Amino acid sequence: MRAALTMRRMDNDREILQSAATQARGLAIDAVSACKSGHLGLPLGSAEMGAVLFGKTLSYNPDEPEWLNRDRFVLSAGHGSMFIYSWLHLAGYDLSLDEIKNFRQLHSKTPGHPEFGETPGVESTTGPLGQGVGNSVGMAVAAKMAAAKFNTAEHTIIDHKIVCLAGDGCLQEGVAAEAIAYAGHNGLDNLILIYDSNDVTLDAMADKTQSYDTLARFEAFGWETQRIDGHDMDAFLAAYEKAKSSTSGKPQLIEAKTLIGKGIPEVAGTAAGHGEGGAKFQDSARAGLSLPADDLFYISDDVKAYFANHKQGLIEAYNAWGETFAAWKAANPENASLLEGAMNKEVPSTEELLVAIPEGDPEKAVATRGSGGAVLNAIASQMPLLVSGSADLHGSTKNYLKDMGDFLADSPEGRNLLFGIREHAMGAILNGFAYYGLHSASGATFLTFADYMRPSVRLAALSHLPVYYIWTHDSVGVGEDGPTHQPVELTAALHCIPNLDVIRPADHEEVAGAFTAAVTRRDGPTALILSRQNLPQISSIPAADRRQGTLKGAYVAKAETSELKLIILANGSELQHAVAAAGELGEGVRVVSIPSFELFDKQSADYRESILPASCRNRIAIDAGVTLTWHKYVGMDGKIIGIDRFGISAPGGTVMKELGITAENLAAQAKTLLG
Amino acid sequence: MRAALTMRRMDNDREILQSAATQARGLAIDAVSACKSGHLGLPLGSAEMGAVLFGKTLSYNPDEPEWLNRDRFVLSAGHGSMFIYSWLHLAGYDLSLDEIKNFRQLHSKTPGHPEFGETPGVESTTGPLGQGVGNSVGMAVAAKMAAAKFNTAEHTIIDHKIVCLAGDGCLQEGVAAEAIAYAGHNGLDNLILIYDSNDVTLDAMADKTQSYDTLARFEAFGWETQRIDGHDMDAFLAAYEKAKSSTSGKPQLIEAKTLIGKGIPEVAGTAAGHGEGGAKFQDSARAGLSLPADDLFYISDDVKAYFANHKQGLIEAYNAWGETFAAWKAANPENASLLEGAMNKEVPSTEELLVAIPEGDPEKAVATRGSGGAVLNAIASQMPLLVSGSADLHGSTKNYLKDMGDFLADSPEGRNLLFGIREHAMGAILNGFAYYGLHSASGATFLTFADYMRPSVRLAALSHLPVYYIWTHDSVGVGEDGPTHQPVELTAALHCIPNLDVIRPADHEEVAGAFTAAVTRRDGPTALILSRQNLPQISSIPAADRRQGTLKGAYVAKAETSELKLIILANGSELQHAVAAAGELGEGVRVVSIPSFELFDKQSADYRESILPASCRNRIAIDAGVTLTWHKYVGMDGKIIGIDRFGISAPGGTVMKELGITAENLAAQAKTLLG
Repeated sequence: MRAALTMRRMDNDREILQSAATQARGLAIDAVSACKSGHLGLPLGSAEMGAVLFGKTLSYNPDEPEWLNRDRFVLSAGHGSMFIYSWLHLAGYDLSLDEIKNFRQLHSKTPGHPEFGETPGVESTTGPLGQGVGNSVGMAVAAKMAAAKFNTAEHTIIDHKIVCLAGDGCLQEGVAAEAIAYAGHNGLDNLILIYDSNDVTLDAMADKTQSYDTLARFEAFGWETQRIDGHDMDAFLAAYEKAKSSTSGKPQLIEAKTLIGKGIPEVAGTAAGHGEGGAKFQDSARAGLSLPADDLFYISDDVKAYFANHKQGLIEAYNAWGETFAAWKAANPENASLLEGAMNKEVPSTEELLVAIPEGDPEKAVATRGSGGAVLNAIASQMPLLVSGSADLHGSTKNYLKDMGDFLADSPEGRNLLFGIREHAMGAILNGFAYYGLHSASGATFLTFADYMRPSVRLAALSHLPVYYIWTHDSVGVGEDGPTHQPVELTAALHCIPNLDVIRPADHEEVAGAFTAAVTRRDGPTALILSRQNLPQISSIPAADRRQGTLKGAYVAKAETSELKLIILANGSELQHAVAAAGELGEGVRVVSIPSFELFDKQSADYRESILPASCRNRIAIDAGVTLTWHKYVGMDGKIIGIDRFGISAPGGTVMKELGITAENLAAQAKTLLG
Repeated sequence: MRAALTMRRMDNDREILQSAATQARGLAIDAVSACKSGHLGLPLGSAEMGAVLFGKTLSYNPDEPEWLNRDRFVLSAGHGSMFIYSWLHLAGYDLSLDEIKNFRQLHSKTPGHPEFGETPGVESTTGPLGQGVGNSVGMAVAAKMAAAKFNTAEHTIIDHKIVCLAGDGCLQEGVAAEAIAYAGHNGLDNLILIYDSNDVTLDAMADKTQSYDTLARFEAFGWETQRIDGHDMDAFLAAYEKAKSSTSGKPQLIEAKTLIGKGIPEVAGTAAGHGEGGAKFQDSARAGLSLPADDLFYISDDVKAYFANHKQGLIEAYNAWGETFAAWKAANPENASLLEGAMNKEVPSTEELLVAIPEGDPEKAVATRGSGGAVLNAIASQMPLLVSGSADLHGSTKNYLKDMGDFLADSPEGRNLLFGIREHAMGAILNGFAYYGLHSASGATFLTFADYMRPSVRLAALSHLPVYYIWTHDSVGVGEDGPTHQPVELTAALHCIPNLDVIRPADHEEVAGAFTAAVTRRDGPTALILSRQNLPQISSIPAADRRQGTLKGAYVAKAETSELKLIILANGSELQHAVAAAGELGEGVRVVSIPSFELFDKQSADYRESILPASCRNRIAIDAGVTLTWHKYVGMDGKIIGIDRFGISAPGGTVMKELGITAENLAAQAKTLLG
């Protein structure tokens, strides 16, 4: 069953698909006019391609938007959201005409930019330019991996394509450049990138900011390319089918020359056609397109009938695939169980994972990056669809999955991803994995370079994607590499992103808890902040308690033995100083390990009060980073020892001392609070 | 006087320059061995190129590291810092052998990665990969602009080159890809990029992560290219001289094939050669290089003599330039005054600028982005070297300098920079302007895309660069574009970066103060956070007071008229709500406008106490963004009304209401504090 490889032909459908394209233009004009905002350029310029894609070539089932073997269509140029909404509606997805009429209104399914989870058929949250290209590359890798894992000689259950529509804006972005290089190098021939080449950007004609040869650019990076007229449906269909059936082993670029805003002569072909500017010509444009003047959001009966019929054909293909899948399932019960679990978003329980992770040596100081590697490998042995990548730093970030191979063009079953020095693409590719939905995906780099991938992290949080980041070499403990590599402010800045859980564990057992939290989370991303330098184990607390305490975000790491007079808060590499200082400060001092503000804030009020009683305002925190984010937990009566400046190039311990991050300084400062 | 175009030849210097290269290898080996960290790969692999650059072709004066017409050499692959330190020492800069011996130690001039301002001859802080490529492009633009402004038909005072040395890591990064595209499009033929092509990255052989055709890649983007053996000094010199004298109008790439770690046979040519791994072979490597066993950090007398003699030649050229400069100065007194002021880092006084900025209409609601455009244009008329760019959003960010032209290949005098949809390159290019040191440079995009350029912002802050960012469309006020475009957390996250001043003004007069603070700041970058939507003027306070109050970071925007019972803190678009709510809440309520935490924190303790008296813990803040960064000013007894989630696609006012950012909600919440 290789339906995806059937060659489509235009046959006698040219006229009806042109009608559909014209009416899709009308939907975009009417929707943008109604809310007086949005972007007309792409929906109008790419209307013929939309008709061919959704009315001819894409493989999908509107009634089962999450069908495993559907083609994924990603609108990287997300500002052109009326393109996808129109075609999803016409195609028969659960997206009513009322939703189209409610474009960009509160609680509609048609937000200004496509949002994953809000609209059936929207595969990826897009709008921030270039991200969708990276997401598509991630989906293509995930699909290759899944095909390698699950297809058999007898049964092909995964052979769909990833189709991405991007504009000049996407292709100017660095994240796309990185993803394009990665895709070419890894031979992602299941990826078709359609470049809506309209010679216009938001601000100006594109020739003000670019003059490169796009086909030559992509060819240099190992892609196969074509250039066609995007309004010629036959040409586009032929190019698409050629790309789909290519045996070159290369990802496929189709540069489609289009007229931006085509259908509104007053703005077509200019920067004014990009946004909502053309909406004021609604009446004349609709007349020019021969749309009925008194019937906004018009769809003709014959277009409706065409798509109803097309949907039936798609469902037949889907049913045929279902038979293949059933046969595969019967023949491969173990893999079927694995795959169906993944499709149902199942993960092992916290308890199962904690049992599987060996305890550390309580006497041995270990860098938490080292513990992270051991913990991740233990978890990976329990989760066959866990994959782990690094931006050319596996040797330093320590998250290489031993004996599990590298994903490369000739080894698609490998579970280690070699992203190269491309952090931003790594972030977007991880999101693509999460959108694809089968794998537990993580990526690693130095914490200081988390900024390079931050726009993708933001989108993971916004789109509730369960990816996780292994960011090592935290704080000035990095040492000699100096301030460029010492992330004094990165952890604080990550705390600002809604729905991102940030965990900075202090020792091996906290690392076990942190990774367990990350891989079992289903509704958003997790940042794992790990040290380069060795840290002692906080072995006065039982290992199980440290693990459970980490899962709750904070716990008492050293209890007071008389009336509570002072709370010391710390996490990561500073917890050792808190424990040491408390030992010197006496009976009334409590140490709270708080590896994750976010996990702690999610606990019950009772639990939070039990750890940080409101009655004790005498609090001091220590952090080898900026202080701004600690005030919430310390208040105005306490003190925060931190580093509100960039670091210094010198051995890590020397820098820590120079900047006051020591048990001695903590004890001295705490004494002033104890009076 | 076009000294830079004299063709250099190798003549009889091949042998001595090879000795210098060998001894530079020895310095790197000895320095890395001494501190047991650092990177040997590039200093050893590029040693011959270093000898040719610093011993033959580069135009510089070690005694005047800030000479206007020096060639700028940027080590984008900053981890190879021992390369630049060795050659600066040999070249005769004020960088002693003791500093080389102190490599990576506390308070040395030889930090782990090159840091601007720490070491004479270091033109740019590098290490985070790709940034140096962007910085170099920025310097090339600045040099083109300066040449267009200051050179005359009679006198050429600026005709130097920008020379950048980058590795695979730099060229894999998206920021470099964006900068390469910008450079090609804008015909930056004063830029020579040397690609240290050694087939190895940190983690592995480069063929694990890349397989692209570099020359084809650059040619597609409009560059002229050459490929040579980087160990063949004659070949490199010829390639360099060809690039320097090219009349193609294109930026120049020299791909130099090198053997990473050459000189340490045990690791050369492998990933192990990249870092400090080869240091353990110090003795045998030094023996293999015929360096004296008992004389670490060895430099032979003949090499010293060669460089001493070379320095004399360089100074003669410098003196010849000085005569040209003196003649130019006499002939162009006005421009000379402008240029010398810029070289001395002079800026207009705050008072001069405030006088030059027209007041707004107190009755008219205006978006602060709109005010920003008016204010920036008024300032630009006072500062002829002020330049302003946008990432394809001038029409939306409103910072276009009217009638001041666009910088393009054929109009290098234009003062508007068209960066394209390349935010990260924009950040790195702005840093390049600041390193170059003549211009007042700013760039603009939507605030939500500040994350795309954050690594460059961090470096601006770290390196004390006086650039400023115009980030518009703040908060959920953006409206229909939805959560992808609503930066609820961006302002908070920017507050975390040390030495970045963040200012979020509330109306036209606060915008005037904010821009004045930004352009007069000399020791770091400033973020200007502006609204898309119209905001009323806070006209109950005199315009001059709002301006001065903004310069101080915070001021009383509505004073209590009886005993102080409550302080409302707000900035930007929420200040209007604070003022409205205070009117309803009664006499004991003070409103504090706090457009900049950072500027406020720099004020005297007395001033801060006068605005936020410690005795008043009854405080409430309102912000259309995340709350985390407000706790410092509100404390545990107060309240913060904010948005600790992502936004919603709907009209901006609707979203504000839906999320509780209204005067009504503020008043209701404040009443609970008043009891």
